Amino acid sequence: MGNIVVGQSGGPTAAINSSLTGVIKGGLYFNVPKIYGMRNGIEGFMKGDIIDLKDAFPNYEGLSVLRRTPASFLGTCRYKLPPCEGNEEIYETIFQRMEEKDITALLYIGGNDSMDTIQSLSDYAASHGKPQRFIGIPKTIDNDLPVTDHTPGYGSAAKFIATMTKEIIRDTESFGGSKSPKISIVEIMGRNAGWLTAASALSRAKDCVGPDLIYFPELDFDKDDFLSRVDALAGKKKSIVICASEGIHGKGGALLSEDSAGLDAFGHSQLSGAGRVLGDMIKNGLGLKNRTIEFSILQRCASHLASGTDIDEAFNVGFEAVRAAENGETGRMITINVEQREPYIANYKAADIHGIANEEKRLPLTWITPDGVNVTDEFLEYARPLIDGYCYPHYANGVPKHVTLYNANMEESGKIE
Amino acid sequence: MGNIVVGQSGGPTAAINSSLTGVIKGGLYFNVPKIYGMRNGIEGFMKGDIIDLKDAFPNYEGLSVLRRTPASFLGTCRYKLPPCEGNEEIYETIFQRMEEKDITALLYIGGNDSMDTIQSLSDYAASHGKPQRFIGIPKTIDNDLPVTDHTPGYGSAAKFIATMTKEIIRDTESFGGSKSPKISIVEIMGRNAGWLTAASALSRAKDCVGPDLIYFPELDFDKDDFLSRVDALAGKKKSIVICASEGIHGKGGALLSEDSAGLDAFGHSQLSGAGRVLGDMIKNGLGLKNRTIEFSILQRCASHLASGTDIDEAFNVGFEAVRAAENGETGRMITINVEQREPYIANYKAADIHGIANEEKRLPLTWITPDGVNVTDEFLEYARPLIDGYCYPHYANGVPKHVTLYNANMEESGKIE
Repeated sequence: MGNIVVGQSGGPTAAINSSLTGVIKGGLYFNVPKIYGMRNGIEGFMKGDIIDLKDAFPNYEGLSVLRRTPASFLGTCRYKLPPCEGNEEIYETIFQRMEEKDITALLYIGGNDSMDTIQSLSDYAASHGKPQRFIGIPKTIDNDLPVTDHTPGYGSAAKFIATMTKEIIRDTESFGGSKSPKISIVEIMGRNAGWLTAASALSRAKDCVGPDLIYFPELDFDKDDFLSRVDALAGKKKSIVICASEGIHGKGGALLSEDSAGLDAFGHSQLSGAGRVLGDMIKNGLGLKNRTIEFSILQRCASHLASGTDIDEAFNVGFEAVRAAENGETGRMITINVEQREPYIANYKAADIHGIANEEKRLPLTWITPDGVNVTDEFLEYARPLIDGYCYPHYANGVPKHVTLYNANMEESGKIE
Repeated sequence: MGNIVVGQSGGPTAAINSSLTGVIKGGLYFNVPKIYGMRNGIEGFMKGDIIDLKDAFPNYEGLSVLRRTPASFLGTCRYKLPPCEGNEEIYETIFQRMEEKDITALLYIGGNDSMDTIQSLSDYAASHGKPQRFIGIPKTIDNDLPVTDHTPGYGSAAKFIATMTKEIIRDTESFGGSKSPKISIVEIMGRNAGWLTAASALSRAKDCVGPDLIYFPELDFDKDDFLSRVDALAGKKKSIVICASEGIHGKGGALLSEDSAGLDAFGHSQLSGAGRVLGDMIKNGLGLKNRTIEFSILQRCASHLASGTDIDEAFNVGFEAVRAAENGETGRMITINVEQREPYIANYKAADIHGIANEEKRLPLTWITPDGVNVTDEFLEYARPLIDGYCYPHYANGVPKHVTLYNANMEESGKIE
């Protein structure tokens, strides 16, 4: 095999750099001459913006910190490769870049759009008799890729959501002596799929009741039902915690947050998250004060609380992508296949990219309780191994150390503080 | 000495239960017959709502988890004892409750209002010839109590703020390939004092530039200056991170968030945090998209990322409060006195509560850089030891274990999962 190039695409996660570490280690293991990294995804690659990852990480120290660094070390993009027809020059540019550097395999770490890129490029290679190989490495906190049991990035986001939900429940319970109930509403990412929102239920244990109500984007939101549930809870509980997906929507499909945006005469575009809309409903409909907390991008970048399972698996899918390319495979994505959940055993396969790209896996409706506001034990059994274990940061001056493009080669730039 | 009673008051923190653990361990060490906990602060105590903490924590396991549990195990209140004159019956009720249970010392963990309660009760005892003793145990993430070098709770909140700011900076940098700059605005607690907001600068290191701009409640906010600084940054940087106190205000003293609330015709009370107001300014004034992140209550309850220094010191001030009561002291608060910052050495004293209660210590103006948008090295040297070290949770099923009133006696209720 010749050289390889790897890129990162889409939203950052706590685990995406662990996949990059896996690719670098895989490249070293299989004696790949040059391991290139494309800066800012395929967009950067088309401009020839690449770095030599062996040069950037000449020793173990840097790789150990890279594995623990959140977000996309190489930079990312939100570019979706257009269809080949009518855009041949884009495809030709990419293959030309590969040929210039004797790159025989392109590995792309990302979600749906990135898998579409792998599919388009491998289809182009097949139809044009090109020898280059294209392998996808799954990554998305949304956990919405099909075929694979779950996606790297999800476990760490889920661990953050479960842990912080439990800490919020503790905080809310502290005010149990107040006359009126204390209500906290938590808004969680995942516009179309409820996997992240469901993770809030992982806070449930002998020492924690978990969220009182959970609202998923898989179901239509019903305001009257919501208010009557909150009203009933307020009659018997002093602390109430409600978790809701940013993507909850009414029967017509319109997002709650969009409805609200339409009401705002001053064009405050950010003022209308789903959590705040629920908070206003409770305040206006029941006269109860409440507080909204948005996990926002914290849930995708909190590598200080990464899941050990997730960081390991993210590394492994990166490593296995190099192996697949080495074996001559192309047009495939590495999948995680769970042999058993307790105790947890997983293995890795390279699955046909057709049937993965552009498909979206939502939370099964059978894992939502019949009342629509909680998850079943099946979900908890599915998700628990994914948030297990930890990968604690290396610390300096009380904060986690990271590695960045400007300090990657720590031997050369001196030890980072 | 007879029995003691301890209460928790005001906003929860990640360290307040470590102080409670210190009181219990101190009570055991000094052979206090009964160690009572008042539920929901002095309000609960007046109703006689107390629990026996030796019964609740008969073994080390529970205390080890209590030390790592966020928020107020005993429940809290936001009740400030009124002046004695005209409210004698309130004071008499409290002393009667103490006499009923042979309680000779009342220890109160809290911030400004709680220290006022200690002052009022010890003054009442002195003027009425009562033998009971009253000791304050400092606790506030705001770090605004005088005399003590810093307050327990601050270090853990500061560690969370510094770590998450660094992780947000990484996330924002990932999009360096975008055409327009990526701007993240972080809103941080501390309405009157900039200690927490300043902690965002602890993210600064060889691997991180830290926030680009920091806005403190100690200074008047100037919109034109703000926009020209953001405009200049946008001309040379692809990622910009701005940290701002929730309490930033204009020259007249009106909070930015209040100004904005006045503009909203629909009475959406929660729609106008300072961060969102800054975001709207940037969008409307410079035409630049941006994203606001509020740390909200996460910064006070994230015990999964507690500072080791903070948890240890919170424990120690609890333990020392029992010692002070045992020594016959009253009308005092335990203070942390730093002998040297590097390497860090601190000791504890019991300081006169007069001169502490109702005083507010703000961030020294000399620790803000002359341009008003950053901190000096003096602040970093002050704060770094306070966020050092960790006190990792005990985990079960991937999330931290906590202890609550309903599972405190884990021997009796069975081991928590």
